[in-house]
Amino acid sequence: MKPDAPVSFEIVSKGPDAGHARVGVLKTPHGIIPTPAFMPVGTQGTVKGLTPELLRQTGSSICLGNTYHLYLRPGSDIIRLHGGLHEFMGWPGPILTDSGGFQVFSLANLRKVDDEGVDFRSHIDGSLHRLTPELSVAIQQALGSDIAMCFDECPPADASRSAILISMARTTAWADRCLQAHDSDKQALFGIIQGGLFDDLRIQHANELIDMDFPGYAIGGLSVGETQGDRVRILDVLSEILPVEKPRYLMGVGRPIDIVEAVERGVDMMDCVLPTRNARMSTVYTGEGRLNLRNTQYRSDLLPLDDRCDGFCCQHFSRAYISHLIHAKELLAHTILTFHNLRHFQRLMTEIRTAIVDGSLAQLRTREEKLEKKR
Amino acid sequence: MKPDAPVSFEIVSKGPDAGHARVGVLKTPHGIIPTPAFMPVGTQGTVKGLTPELLRQTGSSICLGNTYHLYLRPGSDIIRLHGGLHEFMGWPGPILTDSGGFQVFSLANLRKVDDEGVDFRSHIDGSLHRLTPELSVAIQQALGSDIAMCFDECPPADASRSAILISMARTTAWADRCLQAHDSDKQALFGIIQGGLFDDLRIQHANELIDMDFPGYAIGGLSVGETQGDRVRILDVLSEILPVEKPRYLMGVGRPIDIVEAVERGVDMMDCVLPTRNARMSTVYTGEGRLNLRNTQYRSDLLPLDDRCDGFCCQHFSRAYISHLIHAKELLAHTILTFHNLRHFQRLMTEIRTAIVDGSLAQLRTREEKLEKKR
Repeated sequence: MKPDAPVSFEIVSKGPDAGHARVGVLKTPHGIIPTPAFMPVGTQGTVKGLTPELLRQTGSSICLGNTYHLYLRPGSDIIRLHGGLHEFMGWPGPILTDSGGFQVFSLANLRKVDDEGVDFRSHIDGSLHRLTPELSVAIQQALGSDIAMCFDECPPADASRSAILISMARTTAWADRCLQAHDSDKQALFGIIQGGLFDDLRIQHANELIDMDFPGYAIGGLSVGETQGDRVRILDVLSEILPVEKPRYLMGVGRPIDIVEAVERGVDMMDCVLPTRNARMSTVYTGEGRLNLRNTQYRSDLLPLDDRCDGFCCQHFSRAYISHLIHAKELLAHTILTFHNLRHFQRLMTEIRTAIVDGSLAQLRTREEKLEKKR
Repeated sequence: MKPDAPVSFEIVSKGPDAGHARVGVLKTPHGIIPTPAFMPVGTQGTVKGLTPELLRQTGSSICLGNTYHLYLRPGSDIIRLHGGLHEFMGWPGPILTDSGGFQVFSLANLRKVDDEGVDFRSHIDGSLHRLTPELSVAIQQALGSDIAMCFDECPPADASRSAILISMARTTAWADRCLQAHDSDKQALFGIIQGGLFDDLRIQHANELIDMDFPGYAIGGLSVGETQGDRVRILDVLSEILPVEKPRYLMGVGRPIDIVEAVERGVDMMDCVLPTRNARMSTVYTGEGRLNLRNTQYRSDLLPLDDRCDGFCCQHFSRAYISHLIHAKELLAHTILTFHNLRHFQRLMTEIRTAIVDGSLAQLRTREEKLEKKR
């Protein structure tokens, strides 16, 4: 890490386990992030249904913004005019932006990818756009996020070895172009490691990016349909070769059990739409497993969502009230459910950080394994 | 007012104008309400899109619950099991419940009204129900509101004199039955004055209810399509005969100018869906008049909704951001717009209370008249 770098990372404790898990502190221009950290997804400049104050109350210290969505709407120019995404969305804490690569390859009506960039059609109005590594970096600088990501090609989980090799070479070339284009002393640029489910390709690609000396490394191309076993194996492989002193970000993961397993393999940061998406489907995480609040039984249930939870929803509202809001189609239901799920995930992260220091992470994994089976 | 009454009212200032306007304090089991007060409508046990904490931050000291809606869903039994509507919806402050009368006569699929009560069909599932004065009081006692309302018949604005006479007689008889049925030392029961747009009938009905010695009087049957002139004339008539020492509640009113005009005629409490309904249509109240945030011009407008507003929305968000949320169909838009409009109304109420003391209420009316024309 360069001494004047916008983002710095410090490992605070590795605990008595001598495994790869570590408790750390990631310092950014907009605040400090205790790691391992879970980052809620604020796709369109808002974590759905939450005011910035409520987002803060979930215990989230950093949130994500999506370059693809914000570039298309409202456009990076208007966000730059506000002074950046922090000011635009009224969130004073750290923000990480993805590069738009994953979105373009997975969500958008893809038109053509070549070595220079990607042509695609907007999901909003079908208009034609072209993203390049240089443009992705320029947009992210306009957004002013604390951490920007390299523009990468993210192949599907079942891609062939030869397809992975082609996209890896392209991702490495694009990472180099992102580095050249990036010019900010207030934003860190992280590299993204691809390589599919091939151990040797993951090692090869990690080494290519390590040579470029990024201040942090993301693991891309997982959580795209692979098995849990494949994902854990790749994380095991990478845990041995990624530079220990730099933060590691597993993109798009995951369920509570996936989060614990990733932390055991040295991952420091994660993001996932599960807590917010499940909230929109009225599914909540609790210490008893997942509950779907649409079920009739909750209409007369006076208990809170989770009596172990310290969030304001569980302090003030019963399952019956939330069930009523859902059936009456009241907007407040979404706010409450989203808040609760994010609070559940952030409470898990606090437990994880404590467990690393205590050496009790294995017990936490066992508990989450049992809960996941229950779900 | 009986000394052991659950609700008491005290006039704090009548100001130098010697008009009917007065600043007061209404004390209830769940807190104190500075009057004149605007009461946001929380139809289904929530003020749409706002957490109780956000509702408190709008400056609202009391909110409304709708007996008709809550009786049909989730049902008063489940709310009673929670300990009442305060506990159910997590709102610790005062609550006023309407009687269901207005809703049944205006919203519901009406089946039959007789002297005993009203048969109607639920707007939710078409099921058949019967509301009587006794049942309305029993439901409101189960809800545990601080102020309950008598079950009344609310005729349309264009009802004939003979129709008004019939419904007046029925409303008086029902008021008497409500009084007999009401049995709570934690809830006040207010009477509702009908009489249409006939000055003499309003006087007659007011006197019938005054004889029953209610702790507060509501003016019903206005804001149902009458002209502003008719409404103001009726308020003038009633201002002369309603007991000065008791709180007066004008139901369903209204626009800011209507609120000021009512206060000038001695009204202490009002409720209206305008601020919350307009928010759902992206229309906001500002010191420059009403704005519709859907208009294209706001997509690049860096100003807050209202630079005179102290609400957190105007402190943190630009019109461009809110416009973005609206176009991106983000739930947070509803929360922000609802909060802002209620904050606008509560700031107006603070201005009104100050203006009564200052003797500057006429200037406030002139300002709101100009703003209303602008709108």
